[in-house]
Amino acid sequence: MNISDTAKPMATPAGQVRNEEIFRTAAELMVQRGYSGTSMGDLAKAVGMTKAGLYHHISSKQDMLFQILQHAMEGLERAVIEPAKRITDPEERLREMIRLHVRGLFDHGLEFTLLFPEKRHLEPAQQQIVAQQIEGYLAMIREALQELADEGKLQDLDVKIAARHILQTIAGIARWYSKDSGITEDLLVEQTVNFNLSAILKH
Amino acid sequence: MNISDTAKPMATPAGQVRNEEIFRTAAELMVQRGYSGTSMGDLAKAVGMTKAGLYHHISSKQDMLFQILQHAMEGLERAVIEPAKRITDPEERLREMIRLHVRGLFDHGLEFTLLFPEKRHLEPAQQQIVAQQIEGYLAMIREALQELADEGKLQDLDVKIAARHILQTIAGIARWYSKDSGITEDLLVEQTVNFNLSAILKH
Repeated sequence: MNISDTAKPMATPAGQVRNEEIFRTAAELMVQRGYSGTSMGDLAKAVGMTKAGLYHHISSKQDMLFQILQHAMEGLERAVIEPAKRITDPEERLREMIRLHVRGLFDHGLEFTLLFPEKRHLEPAQQQIVAQQIEGYLAMIREALQELADEGKLQDLDVKIAARHILQTIAGIARWYSKDSGITEDLLVEQTVNFNLSAILKH
Repeated sequence: MNISDTAKPMATPAGQVRNEEIFRTAAELMVQRGYSGTSMGDLAKAVGMTKAGLYHHISSKQDMLFQILQHAMEGLERAVIEPAKRITDPEERLREMIRLHVRGLFDHGLEFTLLFPEKRHLEPAQQQIVAQQIEGYLAMIREALQELADEGKLQDLDVKIAARHILQTIAGIARWYSKDSGITEDLLVEQTVNFNLSAILKH
């Protein structure tokens, strides 16, 4: 496997597919060995490039981690945030966010989610960018909860804490799920939506 | 700070306190730098011992990680599992498990929880011990859910998935909580109990 000679792999649709592959493989390796236990040489080998070839696209291991997390957040934006924003009803919007996010975990790799705790190894400015993106997503969950509260449909709960709990049930799947569990993706999507909606809605 | 000359620090109550200190400091460092990014020299320095002194108690970095996780699981056993086992009513037992577990996070350090993903660096036999301990705890949550189902009080839900979601809302607190959030410990305990009970109980 060799990437094309374009300066940045994002440029073409084929480049984007290759990019997804590179980021996914690199994320898997970093999750397996830990950020500190992974070298640029390891990363280059895993994605089938020379170290020089990899440095053509990524300036450092830290840059690689940042690019992967940005790629993951762009995926969340495209697969979850954008479609959900078009839904007016807050209950329906929240259901769809949870549904699409759990689906996205399986479609785009659980390892991206597992890599987020490593964000502490980024530069402060990069950490801030990632933190703001996560905060934006949480704000969207809180907004749906607040709209439900305004409609009288919400349990008596702290919106900030509930938004965190919802997000942890979703991101948590990446930490415990294994194919050997005998749990299908469809069941997991349905159950995660139901668990969270039941937690927050008045009955 | 120098530990006593007894072969293992567990031996006396004072040794236990010192042990808790050592494990906590070591866990903090491993969480901060990642397992791979932390050396025995770093650990010795952080706990105020010479490397030789530390090797007197702990045979390797891997052993240190295993001892810390065993210490954390013993804490869970003592602070959550034992008191909860004495409660007959499954709803009351589950409430108490969540309440005590969230309290325990604050009393014994969030860093122990954050260290569990590093268990992949342990020997297979050690990994299996930790996995069985976690499975035992999950089984206890599932058992309470099953008893509630038998009493006709449970929502129509998958007990295996619900037990995982409950545990993720609790362990997840270690990942997102900060003192700057303005959220008090009491509020967090109450809200985490209510969120999960509302998620699973019929209304």
